[in-house]
Amino acid sequence: IIGGLEKKSKIISPGEKKTIAYHEAGHATVSWMLEHASPLIKVTIVPRGKSLGAAWYLPEERQLTTTEQMLDELCTALGGRAAEEVFFKKISTGALSDLEKATKMAYAMVSMYGLSKAVGNISYYDSSGQQSGFTKPYSEKRAQAIDEEVSNIIEEQYKRAKDILTKHKLKVKKLGSELLINEVIFKTDLERVFGERKWKSYEEEKLVKLDEKKDSKKKSKIEHDKTA
Amino acid sequence: IIGGLEKKSKIISPGEKKTIAYHEAGHATVSWMLEHASPLIKVTIVPRGKSLGAAWYLPEERQLTTTEQMLDELCTALGGRAAEEVFFKKISTGALSDLEKATKMAYAMVSMYGLSKAVGNISYYDSSGQQSGFTKPYSEKRAQAIDEEVSNIIEEQYKRAKDILTKHKLKVKKLGSELLINEVIFKTDLERVFGERKWKSYEEEKLVKLDEKKDSKKKSKIEHDKTA
Amino acid sequence: IIGGLEKKSKIISPGEKKTIAYHEAGHATVSWMLEHASPLIKVTIVPRGKSLGAAWYLPEERQLTTTEQMLDELCTALGGRAAEEVFFKKISTGALSDLEKATKMAYAMVSMYGLSKAVGNISYYDSSGQQSGFTKPYSEKRAQAIDEEVSNIIEEQYKRAKDILTKHKLKVKKLGSELLINEVIFKTDLERVFGERKWKSYEEEKLVKLDEKKDSKKKSKIEHDKTA
Amino acid sequence: IIGGLEKKSKIISPGEKKTIAYHEAGHATVSWMLEHASPLIKVTIVPRGKSLGAAWYLPEERQLTTTEQMLDELCTALGGRAAEEVFFKKISTGALSDLEKATKMAYAMVSMYGLSKAVGNISYYDSSGQQSGFTKPYSEKRAQAIDEEVSNIIEEQYKRAKDILTKHKLKVKKLGSELLINEVIFKTDLERVFGERKWKSYEEEKLVKLDEKKDSKKKSKIEHDKTA
Amino acid sequence: IIGGLEKKSKIISPGEKKTIAYHEAGHATVSWMLEHASPLIKVTIVPRGKSLGAAWYLPEERQLTTTEQMLDELCTALGGRAAEEVFFKKISTGALSDLEKATKMAYAMVSMYGLSKAVGNISYYDSSGQQSGFTKPYSEKRAQAIDEEVSNIIEEQYKRAKDILTKHKLKVKKLGSELLINEVIFKTDLERVFGERKWKSYEEEKLVKLDEKKDSKKKSKIEHDKTA
Amino acid sequence: IIGGLEKKSKIISPGEKKTIAYHEAGHATVSWMLEHASPLIKVTIVPRGKSLGAAWYLPEERQLTTTEQMLDELCTALGGRAAEEVFFKKISTGALSDLEKATKMAYAMVSMYGLSKAVGNISYYDSSGQQSGFTKPYSEKRAQAIDEEVSNIIEEQYKRAKDILTKHKLKVKKLGSELLINEVIFKTDLERVFGERKWKSYEEEKLVKLDEKKDSKKKSKIEHDKTA
Repeated sequence: IIGGLEKKSKIISPGEKKTIAYHEAGHATVSWMLEHASPLIKVTIVPRGKSLGAAWYLPEERQLTTTEQMLDELCTALGGRAAEEVFFKKISTGALSDLEKATKMAYAMVSMYGLSKAVGNISYYDSSGQQSGFTKPYSEKRAQAIDEEVSNIIEEQYKRAKDILTKHKLKVKKLGSELLINEVIFKTDLERVFGERKWKSYEEEKLVKLDEKKDSKKKSKIEHDKTA
Repeated sequence: IIGGLEKKSKIISPGEKKTIAYHEAGHATVSWMLEHASPLIKVTIVPRGKSLGAAWYLPEERQLTTTEQMLDELCTALGGRAAEEVFFKKISTGALSDLEKATKMAYAMVSMYGLSKAVGNISYYDSSGQQSGFTKPYSEKRAQAIDEEVSNIIEEQYKRAKDILTKHKLKVKKLGSELLINEVIFKTDLERVFGERKWKSYEEEKLVKLDEKKDSKKKSKIEHDKTA
Repeated sequence: IIGGLEKKSKIISPGEKKTIAYHEAGHATVSWMLEHASPLIKVTIVPRGKSLGAAWYLPEERQLTTTEQMLDELCTALGGRAAEEVFFKKISTGALSDLEKATKMAYAMVSMYGLSKAVGNISYYDSSGQQSGFTKPYSEKRAQAIDEEVSNIIEEQYKRAKDILTKHKLKVKKLGSELLINEVIFKTDLERVFGERKWKSYEEEKLVKLDEKKDSKKKSKIEHDKTA
Repeated sequence: IIGGLEKKSKIISPGEKKTIAYHEAGHATVSWMLEHASPLIKVTIVPRGKSLGAAWYLPEERQLTTTEQMLDELCTALGGRAAEEVFFKKISTGALSDLEKATKMAYAMVSMYGLSKAVGNISYYDSSGQQSGFTKPYSEKRAQAIDEEVSNIIEEQYKRAKDILTKHKLKVKKLGSELLINEVIFKTDLERVFGERKWKSYEEEKLVKLDEKKDSKKKSKIEHDKTA
Repeated sequence: IIGGLEKKSKIISPGEKKTIAYHEAGHATVSWMLEHASPLIKVTIVPRGKSLGAAWYLPEERQLTTTEQMLDELCTALGGRAAEEVFFKKISTGALSDLEKATKMAYAMVSMYGLSKAVGNISYYDSSGQQSGFTKPYSEKRAQAIDEEVSNIIEEQYKRAKDILTKHKLKVKKLGSELLINEVIFKTDLERVFGERKWKSYEEEKLVKLDEKKDSKKKSKIEHDKTA
Repeated sequence: IIGGLEKKSKIISPGEKKTIAYHEAGHATVSWMLEHASPLIKVTIVPRGKSLGAAWYLPEERQLTTTEQMLDELCTALGGRAAEEVFFKKISTGALSDLEKATKMAYAMVSMYGLSKAVGNISYYDSSGQQSGFTKPYSEKRAQAIDEEVSNIIEEQYKRAKDILTKHKLKVKKLGSELLINEVIFKTDLERVFGERKWKSYEEEKLVKLDEKKDSKKKSKIEHDKTA
C-alpha cells in the first residue's frame, strides 16, 4: 500500500497478478466515482515493500471532515476487496490493511467523533491521555451498540462499492487489463476510460491555477498520499 | 478551542471557513440564550494552536454548581455541532473536543455528583485516590444505567441547542456572516443582533460596579476562559 | 467539610452563601432528630480549606455499630443535599463529599458487614490484605445485588432526610437564616429552636458528670469530629 | 477475637458490653450443641488487641475435614451474630471477622474442596501457584453458581444457629448474664448450665487419659485455638 | 499423594485412618477395573510429606492418549472420594489434590486437546507462549460451554467410580480392612482379592519378558508414578 | 510435526505406531484430494524432536490467499484426527498442534482477514502494535459471533476431511499399511495409490520446467514445508 522501493524480485503467480490489478482498479474506480474521495494521480501493481500494489491520491489538507467525506474514504478503502468479489467471486487476504483502515475509521466515527445516529453525540476520546485502556470506559451494552454501528457502516459502504463496480463493470475490466499489461496507469488513463471527473477538490483547483501561472505542468511538485 | 498564537498560515478551504464561522456562532448564540451559561466576551475564527475558532467567556468562580448550570454549560458545548446540522445538514469532526467535554461533564453529573434521577444520590468519586481504575467499582447493570443516563442528558441538550438555533435562525445567520467577514465579533455585536442579555452573572455585576468606579472601561483587566 | 484555617478570601456569591447555610442547617437538623446520630456541638458556614461549611459533633467511641446507627449516620450525611432540594428545588455539586461518604458506608454495610437482608451474612472484607482488587471476588449477578441494595439503602435514607426537613420546615428556615447572619451557631441555638434533644449518648452523659464535678464548663476539652 | 494482652482501658458503653456478652455466649452455646465443633474451654469479654471478646477451644489436629465438620464450624462462627439478632433484634459490625471466616470457609467448600452438590466434584485450587488471580478461571455463569451455593450454605447455618439459640434461650440468657458479671466463664460453667456435653473429641479423650495419669488437672498444658 | 519420607509422627485419629484406608482402596479398585488405567503396584496409608496415603502405578510412557485413556485416569483419580461416599456417606477435604488433578485433566481435554463433542475440534493451547493469560481468548458463552462440558465429564466419571465400588463393595471392604491392619498392600494382594487383572499394558508385557529373562523378580527396577 | 533429528529411541507401542501411520496417511490423502492444498513430497512416521510423524509439502510462496485456499489448508490440518476417527473410532491427543494451527487459522480468517460472512469485512488486526491485548477491542456479543463462526468453519472442514477419507477408505488403508511397514512414503507412492493428482501448483509447474532443463531430477533442491 505504501510505496517503497520497487521490488521486481517477488514471485507473483499470473493468477495473483490479475487479482492485484483488479483490486487496484477497484480502488481507483470507486474513488473516481465518489465526490468526496481524494482525486487519483497514479495506480501501480509493481510491488513495493510489503504492498503488492498502490494508488496515489492528491491529498486534501482537511481541517474538518464531514460524515459524507468519511464514508467516501471508507468506500474507497473497500473498493479493492469489492472488485475481487465482483470479478472473481473470491476474496483474499490482500485486503488486510484496507480492512484495518476501514475498521479504525468506522470505530473513530462512532466512538470518537459522534458521527453515528445510533450511538449519538458522545466521544470516548481522552485528550488528557490518562485513560489507561485496560478497561473500556463504558458498559458491555454500549460496546455492543458501537460494534453493531461499525459493522452497519462498513457493510453499507462495501455494498456501495460493489454497486459502483457492477454498474461500471466493463470500464473497470478495461482498467484492470491495462494495469495488467502496463503495470501503471495515470489520471489521464482514467479520464480516457471514464470521461472527465465531475468534481474538483479545493486543492486541485488551486493546483490548476498554480499550473496555469507557471505554464509548465511537468515541473509542478505533487505531494502524494498513498492508499492500497 | 484554546487560544494560542494566531496561525494565519493554515490552509482552510472556503467551505471549511464557513462551517467554522457558523459553528462558533452556534456556541455564541446558545450561551447568550441560556441563563446559567457564562457571559460571552469575544468570538473568533482565526485559528490558534490546534483550534480552528474560539469563544471567550467571562468566567464565574463558582463554589457550587447546580444541575441547571451544568445543563446550560453542556448545551453551550453542543451548540457548535448543532449549528452545523441546522445550517448545513452535515456534521463534522470539528466538534471533537466539544463532545469530549460534554461527555465528561455528563459522566461526572451521573456517577460523581449524583445529579441524575435514574442513578440517584450516589458517588463513585474516590477522594482517597486508592481506587485503581482497573476494574469498575460497580456491576455491568449499573454501568448500563450510567451510560443510558449520560446519553439521555446529552441528546436532550443537543436537541435543546438545535431548537434555540432554529428559533433564532436568521440572527445566527447574521452572526455567522459577520464572523466570516470580520473573523472576530464582540459582546457588543451580539447585543446589536440579539438585544441586551436578560441575565447578569454575579461576577458581571461586580465588574460593572468596578468599571463605574474606575470610569475607564478600556483598562479593566478581563480574565477570559475559553471554549470552542 | 473538614475544618482547616478559616478562609475569608473565597469569593462566594450571595446565592451560594444561602445554599451553604441551608445545606449545613439540613445536616444539623437531621442529626438532631435521629436517636443514633452523634450529638451536635457547632455549625459554621465560614469556609475552611476545601469545605464551604462544617458541622462539629461530639463523637462516640463506638466498639460496635448497629444497622440503626449506620442508617442514622447515613441519613445525617444526606441531610445537606436534602435541604437543598426541599428549600430551593435545586441540587448542587456541594454534596460531593457527603455522597462519597454515604456511598462508601452503604457499600461497607452490604458487602463487608453483612448488614443487608438481600445480600445476607456475607463479608468480602479481606483482613489478610492479599486480595488484589483487580478482579471482584464475586459474579456480575452478586455485584448487581450489592449495587441495588446500596441504592435502596441510600434512596430510603435520602427520603427520610427530606421527610424530617419537610416536617420541621419553619424551624430549619429559622436555623438557616441565623447561620446566614451569624455564620456560626451552637448547640444552645439548636436547643432554643428545637427544644432539648430527646436522647443523650453515653459519652455525653459521662461528659455532663465530668462537667458537674469541675463546675466549669468552659475548660472542658472537646474532641470534635467534623462532617459537612 | 484473637486473645492478646488484656486491655481494660477501652471505653465500652454498658449497652455494648451486654451485646458482647451475648455475642460470645452465642458462640459458646452453638459450639456446645454441635457434635463436630471443637470443645470449648473458656469464654471472656475482656477486650484483647482488636477483639472485644474471645472463646477458647481445644483444637483437634484434623487430617481430614468432612462436610459435616465444616458446617458445624461455620454454624459456630455465625453463633455470635445469631445471638445479637435473637436477643436484641439488632445486628452489629461486631461480627466482621466471624463473617469473613464463614465466607472464606464456604467459598473453600464450594470452589476448592468440591463439597457442594450444585457445583460438584471440581477444584479451582492451584497447587502450582501459577494461576495469576487476575482473571477467574471459569465463566460468569459458574461464578454465579458458586456465589449462590456459598450464600445457601451460610444462610442455612445462620438459621441453624438461630434455631439452636432460640431453643435454649433461657440458658443462653443465664450464660450471657454470668459473662456480663464475671467477664469470664469456663467449661465447668457451661456444664453447670447445659449439663455434660454429649460428645467427646479424639483429642479430649486422649487428654482425659493423660490427666488421669498425671492426677493433676491444673498443670496440664492446653494449646488453645481462638475464635470469636 | 506423592510419597516422600514416611512420617509416623502425624496424629491421625482412628476414624481418619479408616477413611484414608478406604479412600486408597477406592483408587486401587477403580484402577484395577478399568482397561486403560495404569497397572497398580503398591498402596499404602503410611503418611509421607503432605499426603496421608499413596498408590504406586507402573506408568506407561504414552506418546498418544485417547479419550478413553483420559477418562479412565480421571475415573481412577475420583475413586478415593467415591469410596468415602459409598462407605461412609460422608465426603472430606482429603480429595483436594485428586480433584485438582481431575479438574485440570478435564479442562485440558475440552479446551486444549479438542476431545469433547460439545466444544469440538478446537484448541486454545498456545505453543508460542505469547498468550498473556490476562484475558481469556474466547467469549463468556464459550467459557460457559467449556465449564459445562468439564462438569459433565467429571460428574460422569464420578458416577462411574461409585458404580464400580458399589458393584465390588465386599471386596473393596476386604481391601480397606487389610490396608487398615497392614498399612500397605501389593499387587499380589489385589490379585488375591479380585483375581488376575484382565488387561496387560504394553510396558507390563515388556517387563514380564524382561523378568523371565533375568529370572529374578526381586531385582527388577521399577519406576513408579504415584497417585493418591 | 517439524522434522528435527530422527529419534529412533522413543518407546512407541505397536498400537500407537499404527495410529500415527494412519494419522499421517490422513493428512497426506486430504491434501492430495484438495485443489488448493500444497503438493505433497514425502510422509514419515519416524519420530523427530517432539513430533511423532511428519509430512513434507512443496510450499507455494503465496502473495494472496483466498478463502478457498485457507479452507483447504484447514481441512488438510484436520485430516490426521479425521483419520483416527474414521479408522479407529477413537481420537487422541496426537492432534494437539494440528488443532492449534487450525484454531489460529480460523480465528485469523474471521477476526483479521474479514473472510467470514457472519462477521463481515472487519479486521481487528493492529499493524501499529499499540493494542495491548489486555482487553478485547470488541463486545462480548461480537466475541460470541467470532467464536461461533470459528467453530462453524472448523467443524465443516473436519466433516469434509472425514468425508474424503471415508470415500477413499481402502486407499488410505493401503497408504497407512505401507507407512507402517516402510516408515516413509513419497509422492510417487501416492501417485501409485491414487493416480496422478489433478492439479499442479504454479511452483510445481515452474519446478517441472526447471527440472526438464537440468534433466536431472535427483539434484533439484526442494525446500520443504512441514505439517503433521
